[in-house]
This record gives sequence, structure tokens and C-alpha cells, in this order.
Amino acid sequence: MGVTRNRVARAFAVLEAFTPERPSLALSEVARRAALPLTTTHRLLAELCAAGALERDGDGTYRIGLRLWEIASLAPRGVPLREAALPFLEDLYEVTHENAQLGVREGHDVVYIERIAGRRAVGVLTRVGGRFPLHASGIGLVLLAHAPESVQRGVLEGPLRRFTDHTITDPARLRRVLAEVRRDGVAVSDRQVTDDALSVAAPITDLSVVAAASGAVAERLAPAVRAAALGTSRALSARRPE
Amino acid sequence: MGVTRNRVARAFAVLEAFTPERPSLALSEVARRAALPLTTTHRLLAELCAAGALERDGDGTYRIGLRLWEIASLAPRGVPLREAALPFLEDLYEVTHENAQLGVREGHDVVYIERIAGRRAVGVLTRVGGRFPLHASGIGLVLLAHAPESVQRGVLEGPLRRFTDHTITDPARLRRVLAEVRRDGVAVSDRQVTDDALSVAAPITDLSVVAAASGAVAERLAPAVRAAALGTSRALSARRPE
Repeated sequence: MGVTRNRVARAFAVLEAFTPERPSLALSEVARRAALPLTTTHRLLAELCAAGALERDGDGTYRIGLRLWEIASLAPRGVPLREAALPFLEDLYEVTHENAQLGVREGHDVVYIERIAGRRAVGVLTRVGGRFPLHASGIGLVLLAHAPESVQRGVLEGPLRRFTDHTITDPARLRRVLAEVRRDGVAVSDRQVTDDALSVAAPITDLSVVAAASGAVAERLAPAVRAAALGTSRALSARRPE
Repeated sequence: MGVTRNRVARAFAVLEAFTPERPSLALSEVARRAALPLTTTHRLLAELCAAGALERDGDGTYRIGLRLWEIASLAPRGVPLREAALPFLEDLYEVTHENAQLGVREGHDVVYIERIAGRRAVGVLTRVGGRFPLHASGIGLVLLAHAPESVQRGVLEGPLRRFTDHTITDPARLRRVLAEVRRDGVAVSDRQVTDDALSVAAPITDLSVVAAASGAVAERLAPAVRAAALGTSRALSARRPE
């Protein structure tokens, strides 16, 4: 029940109790999810509210506070990266009118930093701030193809979850696909995540970040995706000295 | 020196040491900015790194971690609001090709939740996750016009910082402008923040949020901005039952 965890770790266990499915929680739910006694949870909730990390709703439930979001927006791989990529994602969106996405690798997952979508774009499972396994999506395949050998080995050895009939779940085949991605400079995920979406992704130099557009023909999309990734890479290099 | 602050408050003092101007800090800088002893700071930094709230750079400096950003993206007034507004901001951007922005009120400031901009849009001072006083920008004026009377009084009584020759710094005039904003349904900030930008903003019902586009003629922009705000309001109402 968390007795060995320090106070900061317990405060973060409280924050991690909140999920996209349950963004608003009562005291007892937080205590259960964080595996902490009620009294400890109650004190931590009060301290986190005082710090602005949580906000209390009219009905007594808690939710993540805007102040935490303000601090977190300084994460270099979050908002600042997104700001560098945004003009190119906008160009990509205007050319394709599909979902234009930006993601970074965190362990064996891709974390989505940005998604630009119009009202007519195909529905996708991804969410800004959300995670997804590396082996299925276009973004994930590019990030995996350029990840350290140890990460690639870990993913290839682990279970490869099947999302559709097209998801690559055979390690030998995934290894061949990753080699192709490195050779071609783009990754294509054709109905490997959902039955109606196709995504094309390209790496942003030095950062293993990708922009992807889903829902249309790969050959037509690839040049626009490559241009967006290259433009972002250049913008990031130009910023580096500062 | 923080002796009366609890452990969680001190951990947040460490997180708040990071700013847009200084997103990467060494141990001694964190200690000075957080007003904490070096040993305490060192222990808190280690605990925050273990929780993923901070990351350590190759050169030994610290920065806000992606994990904190993932948790913070659940703040209801952050990413979820942005997701509801995004398709309408995209429409607004395509019609205007100016900056399309989304903000919420926090105290006497507007906090910017989203900014969509192309490579050709006018430069603006705002940043996603950043703050700005309410009395100057189009977004700020709309939020202030619809804020509780106590907030309006606080802003009108406080010093009104001058950004340009056009910034409204006279309380009586600001009060008249706020009444016009409530009457017209839009706010116009014409060179009140910078000498080359104009912004038009409209409120999103129930949430005092605005979409703004800056840099062009107010009369031409107002209908598109109103439509974006209205569309977002409807999208949010439709979601409410869940």
C-alpha cells in the first residue's frame, strides 16, 4: 500500500489515478487507484489542489488543474517541439485534409504531441497526450525503425498486439518492414490500426519524430509528409544555437 | 526559505522554477529559484525524475518531463477543450490564414490553450501554455467582459499595463469597451498588444473561451470568428451528457 514510496512518488500516484477514461474522480476512487489509505489521499489531494495541480469540481470530484498543464507545456518534447512542427503540419493538413500528427517515442510506445484534423478527416484512435504501441501505426513504425537496437529487440521479443487482420504480429516480418522503412524514408501503415485508415509517416532528423497523414493513398501522401518532416528538421536545426 | 511549505508544495516550487525563458536548469539554479536549500532541492529533483515529472539532460541540467505533460494533458480546460474547438479553429484558419487561438481565463490572465498558425501569419507574443493580461488582447477582452463582477473590478482597479499607444489603460474607457463587447458579441483589439496586429475574438458559451484571429480587418473576420465560437459551443453542449 505504498509504504515504501516517498511523498513525491505518492503525490504522483495520485495524479496518475486520472486517465482519459476517468478524468474526474472522487476521493475514494483516487485512494483505490493510487493504492493509498484514505487519510493520506485526502491530505495529498488538498496539497495538490493548493499547488494548482488539481482542481475541485462543484460536485466534490477532482480533476487535473490548468496550472499543471501550464508547467507541463514547457516539456521540450511537448509544446516547444510542436511549435516548431506546427507550420509544416498546417501545410500538410491543407494539402491532404487528413489527420496530420506528430509523435515522439517513450519506451515501447508513441506519445502523440499534436494532431490536426478537420471535421471531414477520418476518425482515429489517437489523442494528444495519448499513447499507442510502436508496431502498429505509421508514426510508431518510423520511430521503431530509428530506435536504439535494444528498444527494437524489446518490441520484437514482446507480444505484438493485433488490432486488425493487417497488424504485423510476426517478429520476422516486422524486422523486414523496419528495414524497408529505414531504406525508403517513410513508413506506411495500411489498415494496421483500424480497418478504414492508412497512415504515412516520415522521421524528423535527430529526434525520431514523425508527421503522419492517414486516410488516403500512400504514394500521393508520401512527398507531402516527407516535406513536412524535412521542414521541421530544418526549423529545429536553425533553433539549436540559441 | 520554504520551511513552512509541505513536501508537495516544495516539489511544485521546484517544477515552477522552470519557465519559457529558462526551460533547462542546473541544480543550483533550481535551488535559488525555488528558495530551497541545495540538499532538499537535490532530493526533490531525484524524486521528480523518478516520477517522470522531470528529465535529466546529458549535460546534467534538468527539464520538464514528457510524463508530466501526458498527465497534464487531461486537464479539462486544456487538451479536451482544445479537441472540441480544433475543427472550428481549423476552419477559421483556412478562411483567414491568420493566427487562430483559443484561451481560458485564470485569475486576471488569459492562458492560451491553442494557437494554429501558418508560416505566413503575423508574429504574435502568445505561446501555448503562456499567460497574458486580460485587458489588452481580443481574447482577454472577451474573457474579461464575461468574467464575474469581482474579477472585472479587480482588473479595473489594478494597474493596466501599456503595451502600445493603443492599449486601453484608462479604467473608465475600459469599462465602456467591455460593455460594447457584451453588446456586440465580439471584441476587437486593434494594435493594443503589438503595433502590427489586430485580433477579433468571440466567447464560447458557458466557458468564456474565445477563438481569435489576428492581423486583418475586423469586419471581415468577425463572422468567421463568431462561427468558430458557436460551433465549439455546440460541440461542447452535445458532449455534456457523457
